[in-house]
Amino acid sequence: MPKVYLAGPEVFLPNAREVGAAKQAICAAAGLQGFFPLDNEIGDLGGPEAAWRIYDGNVAMMRAADLLIANLTPFRGPSADAGTAFEVGFMRALGKPVFAYANVALSYPERVRGWLGGALVPHAAATEDHHGLAIEDFGLKDNLMLEGAALSGAFLVEEVPAERLYSDLAAFARCVALAAGG
Amino acid sequence: MPKVYLAGPEVFLPNAREVGAAKQAICAAAGLQGFFPLDNEIGDLGGPEAAWRIYDGNVAMMRAADLLIANLTPFRGPSADAGTAFEVGFMRALGKPVFAYANVALSYPERVRGWLGGALVPHAAATEDHHGLAIEDFGLKDNLMLEGAALSGAFLVEEVPAERLYSDLAAFARCVALAAGG
Repeated sequence: MPKVYLAGPEVFLPNAREVGAAKQAICAAAGLQGFFPLDNEIGDLGGPEAAWRIYDGNVAMMRAADLLIANLTPFRGPSADAGTAFEVGFMRALGKPVFAYANVALSYPERVRGWLGGALVPHAAATEDHHGLAIEDFGLKDNLMLEGAALSGAFLVEEVPAERLYSDLAAFARCVALAAGG
Repeated sequence: MPKVYLAGPEVFLPNAREVGAAKQAICAAAGLQGFFPLDNEIGDLGGPEAAWRIYDGNVAMMRAADLLIANLTPFRGPSADAGTAFEVGFMRALGKPVFAYANVALSYPERVRGWLGGALVPHAAATEDHHGLAIEDFGLKDNLMLEGAALSGAFLVEEVPAERLYSDLAAFARCVALAAGG
């Protein structure tokens, strides 16, 4: 049974284990075994020692996995969660396919302009942010390194209600179907 | 001469090539050869085709490099640039050392609370964001996967004036000294 590492910021949800179990059930129904980051056991550790234990556990799960399904829904800004982006890079360096989804369908420039807000944006076609840094615009949804990685699998987007931004699994399920069929 | 891949959101600065050249000069003075992402030539390509050319070029430079120096200064949110985070993961999967720096010295919870802004934060010790997602607090500066990766090299922080947030090279130079001495 192919093994899938399940990356995404849903690990920060109050009901993260429930969402992880739901993802694993969708995987199992498609003949895939899902590894969820919270499968790590950190015991009574706290502070950096807990962090290093989680890091080592996630790295071991990624090395054992055959492919990645990454939740690249924008997280605290217009781009994907940095930890998930790390994991996309990790898996691509090992030559493992990356299937990605985002529960927001906007283009990257639209995401940045929305994040900057009306007060900060000189006009709707702004090409720089408030620091004067260019807004990447290659007709993609997120940073080109993430989208380039997903050429090895898929990059699916879906608009979902705000309250399900991090928990909606429709696009995830589409990734699973593609991954299982490939 | 050891080869260093130079990752960071300074590629989006108006004077990105100048900053890249300054980084390469600091590397050269320490006996390191610096690869800068804008060393890629994309010719007349535009849109996704340009993006894939840059992706392939960056991947090739990372595979040719011996180590990474990553600018993890918060970018459009409380965490590092997603493309740079991707590159940290890519290099760690290949077992190459990661030296990282951030031109902000706040802890991750402090960064998130600052980013949320006064209006959105119920109190100064908030442990969840406005979506109800937990604010990771392991006594680190950024996502634990990035900091865990930097155990292979270093994670240095420095407070710099706002106008030099993405261009100040003091912490970068300290990374170069450590990388060259290791």
